[in-house]
Amino acid sequence: MDFKALADEYGTPLYVYDFDYMSAQYTELKEAFRGRKSIIAYAVKANSNLSVVRHFAKMGSGADCVSIGEVRRALLAGIPAYKIIFSGVGKSDEEIREALEKDILYINVESEAELERVEAIAKRLDKPSRISIRVNPNIDPQTHPYISTGLHDNKFGVDLSSAKRMYIKAKNSQYLDPVGIHFHIGSQLTQLQPIREAAEIVADLVRSLQAIDIELKFFDIGGGLGIKYDNEETINPYDYAQAILGTLTALDLTILCEPGRFLTANAGYFVTRVLYEKQNGDKKFVVVDGAMNDLLRPALYNAYHKIEAITENKDPVREVDIVGPVCESGDFFAKNYPLPELKRNDLLVIHSAGAYGFGMGSNYNTRGRSAEVAVENSKARLIRKRECFEDLICLEQEFLVD
Amino acid sequence: MDFKALADEYGTPLYVYDFDYMSAQYTELKEAFRGRKSIIAYAVKANSNLSVVRHFAKMGSGADCVSIGEVRRALLAGIPAYKIIFSGVGKSDEEIREALEKDILYINVESEAELERVEAIAKRLDKPSRISIRVNPNIDPQTHPYISTGLHDNKFGVDLSSAKRMYIKAKNSQYLDPVGIHFHIGSQLTQLQPIREAAEIVADLVRSLQAIDIELKFFDIGGGLGIKYDNEETINPYDYAQAILGTLTALDLTILCEPGRFLTANAGYFVTRVLYEKQNGDKKFVVVDGAMNDLLRPALYNAYHKIEAITENKDPVREVDIVGPVCESGDFFAKNYPLPELKRNDLLVIHSAGAYGFGMGSNYNTRGRSAEVAVENSKARLIRKRECFEDLICLEQEFLVD
Repeated sequence: MDFKALADEYGTPLYVYDFDYMSAQYTELKEAFRGRKSIIAYAVKANSNLSVVRHFAKMGSGADCVSIGEVRRALLAGIPAYKIIFSGVGKSDEEIREALEKDILYINVESEAELERVEAIAKRLDKPSRISIRVNPNIDPQTHPYISTGLHDNKFGVDLSSAKRMYIKAKNSQYLDPVGIHFHIGSQLTQLQPIREAAEIVADLVRSLQAIDIELKFFDIGGGLGIKYDNEETINPYDYAQAILGTLTALDLTILCEPGRFLTANAGYFVTRVLYEKQNGDKKFVVVDGAMNDLLRPALYNAYHKIEAITENKDPVREVDIVGPVCESGDFFAKNYPLPELKRNDLLVIHSAGAYGFGMGSNYNTRGRSAEVAVENSKARLIRKRECFEDLICLEQEFLVD
Repeated sequence: MDFKALADEYGTPLYVYDFDYMSAQYTELKEAFRGRKSIIAYAVKANSNLSVVRHFAKMGSGADCVSIGEVRRALLAGIPAYKIIFSGVGKSDEEIREALEKDILYINVESEAELERVEAIAKRLDKPSRISIRVNPNIDPQTHPYISTGLHDNKFGVDLSSAKRMYIKAKNSQYLDPVGIHFHIGSQLTQLQPIREAAEIVADLVRSLQAIDIELKFFDIGGGLGIKYDNEETINPYDYAQAILGTLTALDLTILCEPGRFLTANAGYFVTRVLYEKQNGDKKFVVVDGAMNDLLRPALYNAYHKIEAITENKDPVREVDIVGPVCESGDFFAKNYPLPELKRNDLLVIHSAGAYGFGMGSNYNTRGRSAEVAVENSKARLIRKRECFEDLICLEQEFLVD
């Protein structure tokens, strides 16, 4: 990847995505489930750029969406409705209605109250709704509290006994068609055992539903497969698939898998230019032109990202804080990070920026969001224009009165 | 404030700003400094809506800007160039050039490297640049680490001896005109003593510069005056002014003050609608239609915001987590917060949302940002349209290729 050429052509700060890497990740995961019918439903929230979604669409991917906006993105990008699912704890009536009208594969229901809304709206449309229920198996995934989702003190899903009651209610409703079951215990999972345990619990529920004549078709295992930001041990996709498939003996279910980070994180790079070096007391700072409004993960999760310097200097290496122009002490990409001495206009490449990077970006401090570039077969192309000042004010300028 | 009527008219989630409250805060602060020449330079980053900035412009306010985008906002909103200052640790060459061309009051320089850039660009334009230097007085403001800025391990400003060296360099340059000195030790300050100490240190530096014939005109005390989110003790503006003015004996300086949060935070309300209540194990959740993409402070700083329920129910009060539809466990507004039982479509009003609210908003999960409404003399008017799906994809749709 010639980051210098890309930075010169498209400017900085800049998001660059390696589409070939995304393809390889997709293929590896799809292959891991080859013993079963499966749908890889790309989790659009990880990186929702339309061209990224289309890239997966062309490989046959489905889409896991968490807002009607994401459903629209998926359809616009060419993912067929019958491979689109709609998850999330807070779907509005309008969103549910539109999802039903668009005839997506199913709605992942996350509460009893939501089940009632889906039924009421399906009734109004006189069109039964295919649903899945998100089960919260109360398994600790042993990750950061902000990205764990499968414990009872999380907002996600319902417990096993509520789920069973909801399936029975759905079975007895002419407007609800229970077709799937869903669980997702967290993001950035690096241990197999919690996944296997969760799958076992949920497979048992599938069997007990079978015993009362509720036949599900989709076993939706969520996403969350961890990736290497640093030196994490990660789970091999083949082992992951085997662990889950091993819990499904004698069950005829299509696997639905919702990877996001796994497909895109390490395909992405955030490229930023050095503006200044400065020393405050004992502390050395490298000030770059990218900021927390571009990549929030370090500020929000204290997340680690590997950072590569593109410079003629190789040594000596010093420990520096890499910070952006935003007026917050939380605006940093790394603290005490070893880098060689840098000159103005040197580049820093922040790795693993392809998931939860651009998508969490804001216009804080009236900073336009970065351009996004795709690289495929060694050819680069723009997939989102850099935001200019006019883009930032266009929804408010007309309301300026004297 | 009739939040129900506003929510019905403008939809939810919604930001509402009480412009009269902003006026009262502005006036109180301006009055506190009445014994001196002073410029209240509104810190645009706190709430950069053009109509908010114009509201302060009409009262005679200046603007503290941290990007050239904010400078453009200030000018567009009607703040005269001679009341605009430009701060921030990471100004690009293009930003510095434009600020010089627009002839703003001065550039707040934050490092020796930046001083060199400003001089080089001023030379290229053949136009001396008025500057101020941000001094880092190494005072602990005793606040959250993300909002403290006046210690040496922060990225902001330069230490006293560097500042002195830089002033001498500026004095000797035909392209630099040192007119001010700046310090800002942190945000949400609730104690007077650190401010007084910092002001004393900086005033001493002003005197020692005077002794070598460097006569400054502006004493820029930054912002950071704390507000009540909960039951915080806050500083009375009059006492604040007195503490600072008391350090300036025999100095003929214009005070420049950069309030943001103080002027807008408690003028703002984030109004969100209840979608569902749900129970997971022992935990009760209220799911609302607003989310972390609308108001990031709870997720980012674990910030407290007072929350008011607009509902017919008054009791019993239970402890609930108030969460949004975004697929992150970090998507919450409050945890274990006492609220009465809520019905679908009841409203929650999140207080103190007028600063660092909308401005830190994103489109995460493909959620359009909220509308913003101003209320002035009991009359409401839209000041920013709600973002629709087309707004979110307009910079990327043209790049969709087969």
